[in-house]
Amino acid sequence: MADRYANFANSGLGRTVVKRLGLPDPPRLRRYRPGDPLVSGPVLLGAAPGGRLSGEVGKLLESAGVTVAESGAAGTKYAALVFDATGIGDSEQLRALFDFFQPYARSLTGCGRVIVLGTPPEAAAGPREATAQRSLEGLTRSIGKEFGRGTTSQLVYVAPGGEQAVESTLRFLLSGRSAYVSGQVIRIGAGSASAPADWDKPLDGKLALVTGAARGIGAAIAATLARDGAEVIALDVPGAGDALADVANKARGRALQLDLTAADAAERLAGYLSAGPHAGVDIVVHNAGITRDKTIARMDASRWDSVIGVNLTAPERVNDLLLERGLVTPGGRIVGVASIAGIAGNRGQTNYATSKAGVIGLVQSTAPILAAKDITINAVAPGFIETAMTAKMPIGLREAGRRLNSMSQGGLPIDVAETIAWFASPGSATITGNVVRVCGQSLLGA
Amino acid sequence: MADRYANFANSGLGRTVVKRLGLPDPPRLRRYRPGDPLVSGPVLLGAAPGGRLSGEVGKLLESAGVTVAESGAAGTKYAALVFDATGIGDSEQLRALFDFFQPYARSLTGCGRVIVLGTPPEAAAGPREATAQRSLEGLTRSIGKEFGRGTTSQLVYVAPGGEQAVESTLRFLLSGRSAYVSGQVIRIGAGSASAPADWDKPLDGKLALVTGAARGIGAAIAATLARDGAEVIALDVPGAGDALADVANKARGRALQLDLTAADAAERLAGYLSAGPHAGVDIVVHNAGITRDKTIARMDASRWDSVIGVNLTAPERVNDLLLERGLVTPGGRIVGVASIAGIAGNRGQTNYATSKAGVIGLVQSTAPILAAKDITINAVAPGFIETAMTAKMPIGLREAGRRLNSMSQGGLPIDVAETIAWFASPGSATITGNVVRVCGQSLLGA
Repeated sequence: MADRYANFANSGLGRTVVKRLGLPDPPRLRRYRPGDPLVSGPVLLGAAPGGRLSGEVGKLLESAGVTVAESGAAGTKYAALVFDATGIGDSEQLRALFDFFQPYARSLTGCGRVIVLGTPPEAAAGPREATAQRSLEGLTRSIGKEFGRGTTSQLVYVAPGGEQAVESTLRFLLSGRSAYVSGQVIRIGAGSASAPADWDKPLDGKLALVTGAARGIGAAIAATLARDGAEVIALDVPGAGDALADVANKARGRALQLDLTAADAAERLAGYLSAGPHAGVDIVVHNAGITRDKTIARMDASRWDSVIGVNLTAPERVNDLLLERGLVTPGGRIVGVASIAGIAGNRGQTNYATSKAGVIGLVQSTAPILAAKDITINAVAPGFIETAMTAKMPIGLREAGRRLNSMSQGGLPIDVAETIAWFASPGSATITGNVVRVCGQSLLGA
Repeated sequence: MADRYANFANSGLGRTVVKRLGLPDPPRLRRYRPGDPLVSGPVLLGAAPGGRLSGEVGKLLESAGVTVAESGAAGTKYAALVFDATGIGDSEQLRALFDFFQPYARSLTGCGRVIVLGTPPEAAAGPREATAQRSLEGLTRSIGKEFGRGTTSQLVYVAPGGEQAVESTLRFLLSGRSAYVSGQVIRIGAGSASAPADWDKPLDGKLALVTGAARGIGAAIAATLARDGAEVIALDVPGAGDALADVANKARGRALQLDLTAADAAERLAGYLSAGPHAGVDIVVHNAGITRDKTIARMDASRWDSVIGVNLTAPERVNDLLLERGLVTPGGRIVGVASIAGIAGNRGQTNYATSKAGVIGLVQSTAPILAAKDITINAVAPGFIETAMTAKMPIGLREAGRRLNSMSQGGLPIDVAETIAWFASPGSATITGNVVRVCGQSLLGA
């Protein structure tokens, strides 16, 4: 799991060698620790004329203790450049982006943040506005590739009427919680979201179920949700044994041994959840997943069936039964785990990519239905994450996966977990149907 | 413009060297020549139980002179594997894909074709079906990366009620016209489309305007639309001079010198089109585009303004005025030219990527409005295309762009032109709002 090259590149000697030879230069990413301030410097906040978000954003940042500058000063280093582009109604007005970003492109601190706020093209007043708003995506993705030094760059579309629901997302994106999330397009829907009493414990009082929790990304999800205040049920197959118990203990939660592909699994899970004192569950994270890689020419049917069964059919069945029984509470959160392979496809992974593209389909098709029940459903799509699984890859593939992204390094399980915790926050009530990649802005895509 | 490596790799000695050293192996792609048969071997056609397309597809392929096999035979080489997946209503039924593709994964001829037909997830009967249909994307993209040897792999979503409108797309995808199009998701809407009298001259009697036509991709578009029967107006800036005249002459069309960024350009173009005997135009291809690359930190405002102006604002103005004056005929076709950079973003191209993402926005936001006028609007998004522009790239970047795709080579201007000609076909009447990449399934994406 160790990225020895990154450790070397960040050593005294390594810095010199990397610079001289023009080698990949993976910065040390700023990751969140409880108690950290949101950002470690002032935030420059700009807006195109007529925008509807910068006022609200300025207020919430200031009340979060952030120093907000509304006009830039030469020589100042900013922790973030935030631009409200909702006032842009026409391609000619895109010039406001250039005017804001150009003078301060070199004024960001390391691991800085670029956030552009826009109106979802589908909610724009007409084609001219929709076109200009859609073009923001080209800007933010290019900036993510250009700025480097751990800078992340995102486009956040806020539906008209969603102005009061942006805080959880801004906090996530500004903080070290989103260290490995870049080049993403996030949609916040209309409506309001209640702020948690304590932004460092946003999940206080919530009960969370995490599948595949015994190791790797699942263990990090369990630990992170617990850190954020949730009571965690860590679920894994009976064979996971001690590892699962360890995770549950560390999270001060419960371990639940269950093979989700068993015919009666959903029924047993429903029974378990309805028997508890909570009578239901607030957060469901479908993390359990397997790979059985082979080219399709060499694949046997069991590899196909098991991957589809664990990664896709099991979450479908669990969702269907829990929802039918009313066991996901109002205000509930369901999160799926997709993958870059489900977006881009991958050689040797027809089964896995099919299952993970299906997870995206599950999220997108279920979101409108669950909205009526005040439940959100979203997915993360991890790129190259440092786990026991990726440590076993052949070195050529592993190094390519690690370096071919804007961070020149792999992500950590915690990065996936933080993104899930953001979806799970009470503040994310109007975020649904999103698929957010946790990939350091990998070059790979579709 | 020459890909010397590909020429070498396809030489007698080169084949041996490439195999021994495991070097990239760019196959010679099968490209269309008038009179070519659709495919050079039998097509294996399968279906999941309950599908609504394979009957129609079998009939149209047979009437196009294709030998269709409905069950595979060991040892036979197939030119294409076509699978109707519309009957798949649940993730467990995805097994039908494995059962169809696994035994014949090695039975495709070089430059073979994989086509999976599905139901658009948004038109599915419920979340289970939508999820399964969405997962088809993971399969087709993985197959594209896995099969190699010039195989292309696509997912074609056919809306319920669009069964009679699939022929132009199947012909495009099976033929050498789509040599460099792979890993794409195409949506065919409900409704019917009239077959052209002659599939080798589908644009007979149509008047087509091509901007930026003097060279490169624009010249290929003009030539290809003319080859397919259209009368072509080749437009470029006055400075293009002889090159433009040459293109127009070769296409037996007209040259029109006009700077589209001039304040009165749209007005002058409208005047030109309304004065002609045709009183309007049937096909408008917004190909004119420029790059002015710099990182945003080093960019001056004129680079920003000119790129947005030429690539995005000019097409918007032309569309708006031509549509307002009724100068795009009913049955008309508008095609924009986006770019991989507009999808993935690119270092040094904040201006270009913004403009090209905008072209995608233009297409997506205008399509529903134009549907009422029986006009379609779509975009191509080229990847690495061998042109004078890419020939000037530094060798490292150029070779990366050329090889990092499923074809291990760059595309040709004709590949972009063929895709535009398919959009322009009378048979593509229900295809609108699509963005199709012409990139050999580049690894780069979003």
